[in-house]
Amino acid sequence: MTASQALPAVLDRIDADIDASIKRLFDFVRIPSISTDSAYNDFCRAAAEHIASDLDSLGFDTVVRATAGHPVVIGKSNGGATANGAPSVLFYGHYDVQPVDPLDLWKTPPFEPRIDTLPDGRKIIVGRGACDDKGQVMTFVEALRAYKAVTGKLPLDITMMIEGEEECGSKSLFPFVRQNAAEFKRDLALVCDTGMWDPRTPSVTTSLRGLLYEEVTITCADRDLHSGIFGGGAANPINVLARIIAALHDGNGRVTVPGFYDGVQELPADIKAELKALNMTPESFLGPVGLKVPAGEKDCMLIEQVSTRPTCDVNGIIGGYTGEGAKTVIAAQASAKISFRLVGEQNPEKIRDSFRAFVRERLPADAKAEFINHSCSPAIQVSYDNPALGKARAALTAEWGAKAVAVGSGGSIPIVGDFKTVLGMDTLLVGFGLDDDRVHSPNEKYDLTSFHKGARSWARIIAALAG
Amino acid sequence: MTASQALPAVLDRIDADIDASIKRLFDFVRIPSISTDSAYNDFCRAAAEHIASDLDSLGFDTVVRATAGHPVVIGKSNGGATANGAPSVLFYGHYDVQPVDPLDLWKTPPFEPRIDTLPDGRKIIVGRGACDDKGQVMTFVEALRAYKAVTGKLPLDITMMIEGEEECGSKSLFPFVRQNAAEFKRDLALVCDTGMWDPRTPSVTTSLRGLLYEEVTITCADRDLHSGIFGGGAANPINVLARIIAALHDGNGRVTVPGFYDGVQELPADIKAELKALNMTPESFLGPVGLKVPAGEKDCMLIEQVSTRPTCDVNGIIGGYTGEGAKTVIAAQASAKISFRLVGEQNPEKIRDSFRAFVRERLPADAKAEFINHSCSPAIQVSYDNPALGKARAALTAEWGAKAVAVGSGGSIPIVGDFKTVLGMDTLLVGFGLDDDRVHSPNEKYDLTSFHKGARSWARIIAALAG
Repeated sequence: MTASQALPAVLDRIDADIDASIKRLFDFVRIPSISTDSAYNDFCRAAAEHIASDLDSLGFDTVVRATAGHPVVIGKSNGGATANGAPSVLFYGHYDVQPVDPLDLWKTPPFEPRIDTLPDGRKIIVGRGACDDKGQVMTFVEALRAYKAVTGKLPLDITMMIEGEEECGSKSLFPFVRQNAAEFKRDLALVCDTGMWDPRTPSVTTSLRGLLYEEVTITCADRDLHSGIFGGGAANPINVLARIIAALHDGNGRVTVPGFYDGVQELPADIKAELKALNMTPESFLGPVGLKVPAGEKDCMLIEQVSTRPTCDVNGIIGGYTGEGAKTVIAAQASAKISFRLVGEQNPEKIRDSFRAFVRERLPADAKAEFINHSCSPAIQVSYDNPALGKARAALTAEWGAKAVAVGSGGSIPIVGDFKTVLGMDTLLVGFGLDDDRVHSPNEKYDLTSFHKGARSWARIIAALAG
Repeated sequence: MTASQALPAVLDRIDADIDASIKRLFDFVRIPSISTDSAYNDFCRAAAEHIASDLDSLGFDTVVRATAGHPVVIGKSNGGATANGAPSVLFYGHYDVQPVDPLDLWKTPPFEPRIDTLPDGRKIIVGRGACDDKGQVMTFVEALRAYKAVTGKLPLDITMMIEGEEECGSKSLFPFVRQNAAEFKRDLALVCDTGMWDPRTPSVTTSLRGLLYEEVTITCADRDLHSGIFGGGAANPINVLARIIAALHDGNGRVTVPGFYDGVQELPADIKAELKALNMTPESFLGPVGLKVPAGEKDCMLIEQVSTRPTCDVNGIIGGYTGEGAKTVIAAQASAKISFRLVGEQNPEKIRDSFRAFVRERLPADAKAEFINHSCSPAIQVSYDNPALGKARAALTAEWGAKAVAVGSGGSIPIVGDFKTVLGMDTLLVGFGLDDDRVHSPNEKYDLTSFHKGARSWARIIAALAG
C-alpha cells in the first residue's frame, strides 16, 4: 500500500486519535525545557529523552546525541518507502522553549497545559511551547503515528532532528551539522516552525529573516556611585547606552549602522504587488496587540516592515536600581540585548563588526563596551523551482479548502541557512501557527484546529512527496 | 558646670568609651532598615525602636511617632542649659538605609558590621549604614552620652528627630513637620549627614542640591511580542525610552528640558575663586572610582559640576528580557528612574511638569507614558551670617588641626528646605563622611577616625553653642 493509497485511512485515524494526540502533546508541554537559562538544563534533557522515547515507539532508531550544549535527538527510519523515487527527508524541529517571564501575566501556570475556549468559539491549547515548537513538531509526529498504525511502517525515508537550542541561537547545532554533514544530507528538509497566513489560509514560507543578536555592556566607574556626590561629574553608563540606542535609527526608521543595507534588494514589482494584494492592514495585524501605526521604515508597507525588510530592536535593557521606590545611584554598568533581523544577502558577521564599531565610536571618555554574540545567522530564501513546494501547496490547499500562499516570514530559524549551504538541500517550511498565538509571550496558545488539521496537512504532504 | 567647663572631661570620656561606642553602632547597623522596599517594613520599625530606646536611656522623653509611612523618633530634653542664652536645637538624622544590591559585590554581608584595615592603615567600620546615616547620627548621640556621663545632664535644650524615609524622599516627614510646626520650631537645626572636604579637612556644608526624582514607564503593545513576527512593524518602548533619555542632554552636557536653568545663578567671581582654590582635580576626585574625565557641563569646573550646578542622571532602567542568554521579544513596557539635582532657585514642581511634557512630546504613535514622583525638593542655602556657622567652624578647626572649610554639597537632604521655609530656622550641616565611603554602594564604610573624632567634634560644637 502506497502512502497515497493509505491517505484516506490515515486521515480517519488522525481524527479518531485526536484526544490521545492532545494528551501526548500535554505530556511534552509539561516539561519546562527553557534552553536559555541554565537553571533548566535538567528539564531540557528530560524533554529530549521524552521525544526520543516517542520516536523510538514509532520505529525510529533513536539516539540522544550530546553536543557542547543541550543534546540533539536523532531518529532514523533507515529506509522506508524510498524505492519508488520518493525523496529522503530530514525533519527538523526543537524541543526547547522560551522563558516564561513575566510569570504574573500568565492566567494559569505555563507548564500546566489546558484546553480553553476563546470568545469566538475557537478551542485552544494553552501553555509555553503549545505552539512553538512542541505543538508544531507533534503535528508531524502524529501524522507519522497514523501512517504507522494504518500501514505498519513509516511512509518515507525520514531522519528526525529535534534540537534543544533553537530559542537561544542553535549554537551547538551548527558545529554538530557541519561535523556530521554526510550523515544528515537528504533530498529535502522539512520544518514545522512557521505560521499560517491567517486562520483560514495555509502557507508555505519561502524566506526567513536572519538574526544578529548582540548583548552590549557599558561600564564607566568601577563601582556604583552616589548621585548626590558624583552626579554631574561622573559618566553614567545608562545615559551612554541610551544615546547609542537612540542613534541606531534615523528619523525615517532606517538603521544607521554603516553598511547595514548592503545586500538588501528592493523587491521586484510583481512580488511587491503580490504582497500588497495580501492586504495586511495596521488594523488587522497590529490592532489585536493594542497598536495602530506601523513603526518601521516610513516608505515601506507594513508587510514589508515585518517580513522582507531588515530591522533593529532592543530586546532587553537593564542598569542601576530597578527595585521598588527610589535610589540615588549612578550605576557602574548598564547592558542591552540588541537584535537585527536580516534579509537578502546581508552579511551578519560584517554587520556585527560594524555595529560594534558603531558603539565604540560613540563611547565618551571613561566608558568601555563589551559584547556577547547570541546569534549570527543570515537570511534564507527557498528555491521557487523545487517541486516539493508545489506539492506541498496543493496538499495544503486540499486540506484547508483555501489556496495556500507562498510568503516570507519575519522570524528566523538559525539552522535552515546551513541546511542549504552545508547540506545542499532546500527546506520546505510549513507551519500552522497564528498571529494571535502569543508565541514568546505569556499565555502562549495553539489552536486545536492548528494541531488537528496540521497533522492532517502533514499526512497529505507526505502522501504527495511519497507519490 | 557649663558645657565648656565640662569639655575636657567629655573629650576624655569619648576616648575612653570608644570600644563601647563602636559596639553600640554595630547593634544599630545590624538592623536592615531599608526604607524604600516594603519587605523591610518591620526592620524599619525595629530600628526606630532601637534608637528610641537609646535616647530614652540618655534622659530624653522619647516617643516613636506614627506617620503615613515609617515612624519618626522624637526625643525631647525638655529644657536643659537654655537659661544662659544658648540656642535650643533640633537634631535631625535618619535611621533608614539604602538597598544593598548588588549583593554579590559585598565582601561580607551588609548587615554584619565589622572593623577592617585599609592598605594605608586606616581602620574602617564596614556595613550598610555605617556612615549614612547611622554612624553619623551616633557621633552626635555619643557626644551627648559623654556629657550625660560627665555632667549628669544633657548639655543643651535638644529635640531629636530621627526619621525613617530619608533614603526614599522623606515623603511622610514633610506633612509631619508641617502639621507639628509649633512643636518643632527651635533656634537652630543640627544635621550630621554630610562629609569632610578630605580626610584631614573638616567642613560645614552651606548649600545642598535639591532633588526631583521621577519614574517613567513607557507602554506600547498590550503584551510582549515576538520580534520575528512583529519586529519592524511594532513600536518598541525600550527604543522609545532610549531616544527620550538621549534627548535630555545636548552635546555640551547641558540639560535640554525647557526652563530647566531658570533660577540657576552664575556663581559670584569670589565664590568661584574660592572653589577653584580647593583644587578638586579629576585625578583626586574621579580617579579613586576608576574615572578620569569630568562628564558634566563642558564649560564648568568639576567642583561646580558636582556641587553648584544642576544635573540629570538616569538612576535605573529596565525593560524586556534581562536574564541569561537571548530572547527575541519586543517588550510591552520599559521604565526608567530619572533624577535631577537642583540648585539655587530652581523650582522642582515646574521642572517636573516641564520634564513630563518633554517626555510626552517625544512619544511616537502607540506609545504612552506614566509617571511616579519619588522626590520633589528644592535646593537650600544656609545663611552665611548665622553665628552658629562661625562657632562650628572654629570648633572643627580645633578638633582636626586644619581650618574647617564652608562648601556646597551635591547631595540632598529633603527636609532641610522645610526647616527653613516652614520652621524658620537655619541648619548647621556638619558631617564626617569621606568621598571613598561607598555610601549607597556595596561595602559602605565609615572611618573609625570619622566616628571617633566626629563625636569629639560634636562635643566641641555643643560646648561652643552652649557658651
